[in-house]
Amino acid sequence: MDYQQILNQIEDELYTQKSTGKIASYIPELAKIDPHKLGMHLYCINSGHYHFGCNDERFSIQSISKVFALTLAMSLLGDDLFKRVDVEPSGNPFNSLVQLEYEQGIPRNPFINAGALVISDILISQLDNPKKDFLNFIHQITDEPSITINTDVFKSEKEYSYRNAAVLNLMKAFGNIENDIDTVLDFYIYQCSIEMSCKELSKAFMIYANQGKKLIDNTQIISLQKTKRINAIMQTCGFYDEAGEFSFRVGLPGKSGVGGGIVAIHPHQYAVTIWSPKLNPKGNSELGMYALERLTTLTGLSIF
Amino acid sequence: MDYQQILNQIEDELYTQKSTGKIASYIPELAKIDPHKLGMHLYCINSGHYHFGCNDERFSIQSISKVFALTLAMSLLGDDLFKRVDVEPSGNPFNSLVQLEYEQGIPRNPFINAGALVISDILISQLDNPKKDFLNFIHQITDEPSITINTDVFKSEKEYSYRNAAVLNLMKAFGNIENDIDTVLDFYIYQCSIEMSCKELSKAFMIYANQGKKLIDNTQIISLQKTKRINAIMQTCGFYDEAGEFSFRVGLPGKSGVGGGIVAIHPHQYAVTIWSPKLNPKGNSELGMYALERLTTLTGLSIF
Amino acid sequence: MDYQQILNQIEDELYTQKSTGKIASYIPELAKIDPHKLGMHLYCINSGHYHFGCNDERFSIQSISKVFALTLAMSLLGDDLFKRVDVEPSGNPFNSLVQLEYEQGIPRNPFINAGALVISDILISQLDNPKKDFLNFIHQITDEPSITINTDVFKSEKEYSYRNAAVLNLMKAFGNIENDIDTVLDFYIYQCSIEMSCKELSKAFMIYANQGKKLIDNTQIISLQKTKRINAIMQTCGFYDEAGEFSFRVGLPGKSGVGGGIVAIHPHQYAVTIWSPKLNPKGNSELGMYALERLTTLTGLSIF
Amino acid sequence: MDYQQILNQIEDELYTQKSTGKIASYIPELAKIDPHKLGMHLYCINSGHYHFGCNDERFSIQSISKVFALTLAMSLLGDDLFKRVDVEPSGNPFNSLVQLEYEQGIPRNPFINAGALVISDILISQLDNPKKDFLNFIHQITDEPSITINTDVFKSEKEYSYRNAAVLNLMKAFGNIENDIDTVLDFYIYQCSIEMSCKELSKAFMIYANQGKKLIDNTQIISLQKTKRINAIMQTCGFYDEAGEFSFRVGLPGKSGVGGGIVAIHPHQYAVTIWSPKLNPKGNSELGMYALERLTTLTGLSIF
Repeated sequence: MDYQQILNQIEDELYTQKSTGKIASYIPELAKIDPHKLGMHLYCINSGHYHFGCNDERFSIQSISKVFALTLAMSLLGDDLFKRVDVEPSGNPFNSLVQLEYEQGIPRNPFINAGALVISDILISQLDNPKKDFLNFIHQITDEPSITINTDVFKSEKEYSYRNAAVLNLMKAFGNIENDIDTVLDFYIYQCSIEMSCKELSKAFMIYANQGKKLIDNTQIISLQKTKRINAIMQTCGFYDEAGEFSFRVGLPGKSGVGGGIVAIHPHQYAVTIWSPKLNPKGNSELGMYALERLTTLTGLSIF
Repeated sequence: MDYQQILNQIEDELYTQKSTGKIASYIPELAKIDPHKLGMHLYCINSGHYHFGCNDERFSIQSISKVFALTLAMSLLGDDLFKRVDVEPSGNPFNSLVQLEYEQGIPRNPFINAGALVISDILISQLDNPKKDFLNFIHQITDEPSITINTDVFKSEKEYSYRNAAVLNLMKAFGNIENDIDTVLDFYIYQCSIEMSCKELSKAFMIYANQGKKLIDNTQIISLQKTKRINAIMQTCGFYDEAGEFSFRVGLPGKSGVGGGIVAIHPHQYAVTIWSPKLNPKGNSELGMYALERLTTLTGLSIF
Repeated sequence: MDYQQILNQIEDELYTQKSTGKIASYIPELAKIDPHKLGMHLYCINSGHYHFGCNDERFSIQSISKVFALTLAMSLLGDDLFKRVDVEPSGNPFNSLVQLEYEQGIPRNPFINAGALVISDILISQLDNPKKDFLNFIHQITDEPSITINTDVFKSEKEYSYRNAAVLNLMKAFGNIENDIDTVLDFYIYQCSIEMSCKELSKAFMIYANQGKKLIDNTQIISLQKTKRINAIMQTCGFYDEAGEFSFRVGLPGKSGVGGGIVAIHPHQYAVTIWSPKLNPKGNSELGMYALERLTTLTGLSIF
Repeated sequence: MDYQQILNQIEDELYTQKSTGKIASYIPELAKIDPHKLGMHLYCINSGHYHFGCNDERFSIQSISKVFALTLAMSLLGDDLFKRVDVEPSGNPFNSLVQLEYEQGIPRNPFINAGALVISDILISQLDNPKKDFLNFIHQITDEPSITINTDVFKSEKEYSYRNAAVLNLMKAFGNIENDIDTVLDFYIYQCSIEMSCKELSKAFMIYANQGKKLIDNTQIISLQKTKRINAIMQTCGFYDEAGEFSFRVGLPGKSGVGGGIVAIHPHQYAVTIWSPKLNPKGNSELGMYALERLTTLTGLSIF
């Protein structure tokens, strides 16, 4: 299969695609991004790298960081982790407090904000230097030691974090947060502020396509069983209230962020990242969704 | 891989497994079933049939029929179908009216009761003899012309269908039901009352594992693209409010019914059915969930 | 106090009041009404009748009938009635199924549709000829034997009653409806289709202002204690999700209907009715709310 | 009417009344109270003071303070106040976040926690020394300058205020809180920690029974119109999710607190306070509810 040709075709289609999406504006710093940025990077187990556009330019990974945080937490803890956060799709917009209250402070899954805040709380209790260790983990799986946060985004998000503070306080009231609220919030926002390029994200997500191992040197980062479970959670919970739609149209486990990035993996085949900042009404990159649907259609491959 | 040996081991484990589940009792006729019934049937694309227990005994397929109804509807209609029913996980118990009201009469997916009632309404509008045609479809994909409904279960369910009538009236108020409410309800209950054995269900679901084709003669029942989409919906919505858990532990698309049956498929590999009537608190066969988790663990295979 | 002068002032103000309200359109027959109809009738215990506009013209009383139904049911049953329907404000739009499901089929109060349907079910079980007896009760408290239903409205509402059928089926599923759903629905719609004038409604509601007795001949229709309780329910639940606002601005127990009528009473003082078909977004007569606020302001009297 | 005789009878009945209630335990300091404390104080406009039990002993007024805060805010601001907090009953437990989220950060009424937090925010913006000025206001309406907070309760509540912090953060996210969250929370808890006796509460609430004026010297504390409105809000919203029940059984405006106090007023007649710490499942004093129902039954007087 000629992957580069397929990517070229997708690129051509994207330029003619009308987008009605809007860039994320709830944080002023994110709203400054050029809405026409576009990049895609496909990293295949058997045949290496394919790409187009600004696939090397770093952007705010935002919620994509939740996958790394979950992976790190699962590598440190056993199944006890899932007493504090469930693995069910939320069936509600990504930041709703309603379900959290009905379910007594136990978030539906680790990829909604509430769940990721619990994971952050767990990492703070488990790690010596949470921020440094988290960044090191990303350096380890990407071999890109220059990856770091965007401090402007970090500061900007801290100023607009009342809703996440509400979620944290509610979970603390239910006894599901151990550490100080400000500490958890600070670490959570730190993770969201990390910047990576499409290429770097595809390299990082290769471990989920490659049975938990880095492709380059076969280092086992996370066990095969845990890799499968993370992929399963991405499949059912990776796209806010559009997880079913993504599964239906694309058929791959993946994760999106409000920075406009989407990463998806095909087990045993590839990891792929696309970046386009305009979001659809459910908060996922509009062109990103389209590009990935075209990829599985044109390759004829999906996990189903 | 010696599949029969794996099934034997699962059978042994099931006999020692303590079950705290309860059989479905909301319909008197269903409550009469022997709670200790146990059967499993695995149908592999490459190597044929493996089984244990009463894999040949028919039981009430209940909600498993929703997969057949969706398949038939998708074979008759294009994407317009999904204007009347969404494909998102429900994140709520299987018969809740709450979400339906918030979402203006559009059910979350075709595998909750509300969604299946819309599918029934569509089939009534599309088919000449809905009941006969539906049964014929099952005869066609199983080559088992003796499959039919249990009339006692059919009558019993009709007497306890007020909640489904509520759901239908609400959707009719929102303009999402075309036919008479009694007609739709009658046809829906008819589908639920069909009885099939583990073996027959595995044969029927082989089309989802085999790219939409019957294995025995390669007849294309439904297109490859639609097959993948049905599998995706099973993956994200097949287990009421336990879809994430099933995906997390088992990692296969599947569908359960309150009669105690669960069918799952592994694309390109197999279809498998287990029957054990005791249900866990979320309405899925307790031992069935366990058996399928063991199957993917012991075979080392899942879609992730 | 010169009540007629006060009414005249209110009438003048109403003619200059800009109304952004809309007449009820969910039933075609109701949508035919002239939106500019306007009438008010004040019936004082000590000084008799005051009025302006078309206070003698009959209109569809709709939900105002719920007060008569509750009164009749309370006269037949003791406190057991309140095991089947609560007396709490609903805090939700008047026809929501959400709360009903959370509260296991027990409606919040007798003035939301669900509660009135339970009251209808009770009356059917208690009365020999529900429709005739209900009409007789209204004839008795008004001395107006010509009051009857509008058959066009009755038929029209029967065609658009899916939501109420949904509510009934849901309550039947919870075991809170004894009679056939169609029978209950038919009787409920019958009550809503009754037509009365402002004058007739003020005469009927005089019993609530006059300690349960008809003013004209002191007949005790309902006990003093039950009268107070009905008034209390009107105070907290008489205006859908605007009961607090009405209490805050007007300060009297009352009941509105989507036909554009509002009746309110001041214990020991008067009963008053206003009719103006345009409804505000919460379903209450827009000018009616204004007129009653002016009445209590200009008289300087409220229960608080 | 011999009020003392009526109070004596109520006292006798209370001693034989079996209570299944429980004292508030969500704050350790409140849980220390003797559950058998019992006091009642009736302050009549025409005939002065009647009482029994420990009517002179101070207890934690808790949510009763919300009435004073609303009064002070209404005396400082016009109707703009009600753009930031509604006046509708909540129809939900007193601390639910659900409704707040659906209604975009506008609390249902000033007597649920969310609403009282908004009122606190308003007072902080309006007053020079919020705590001192608030206490002064209570001193002014009671002529009891020794009334102050219980510092142990204050500290204890500050340690268990995560849920209120969640509510505040959520409202801040919606733009409905102006001041620092910690400042608002601190002032809110300060108000709740005030201690008053039954006698002092009856004296304070006399202004609501006496058209906004102190009885002793006719000082107008709040206008007649605003007094009526506060009474209306007490009527529809004063008892969490039991406002309808209280209105139905007692028929007076009132306010309860989790410290076990209930104050009610009869316009033009009296203010009455009862204290008994055991709460019913809805959070209101169990014997308090009973005593007030008996009071209106034995006097034959209610606003209805």
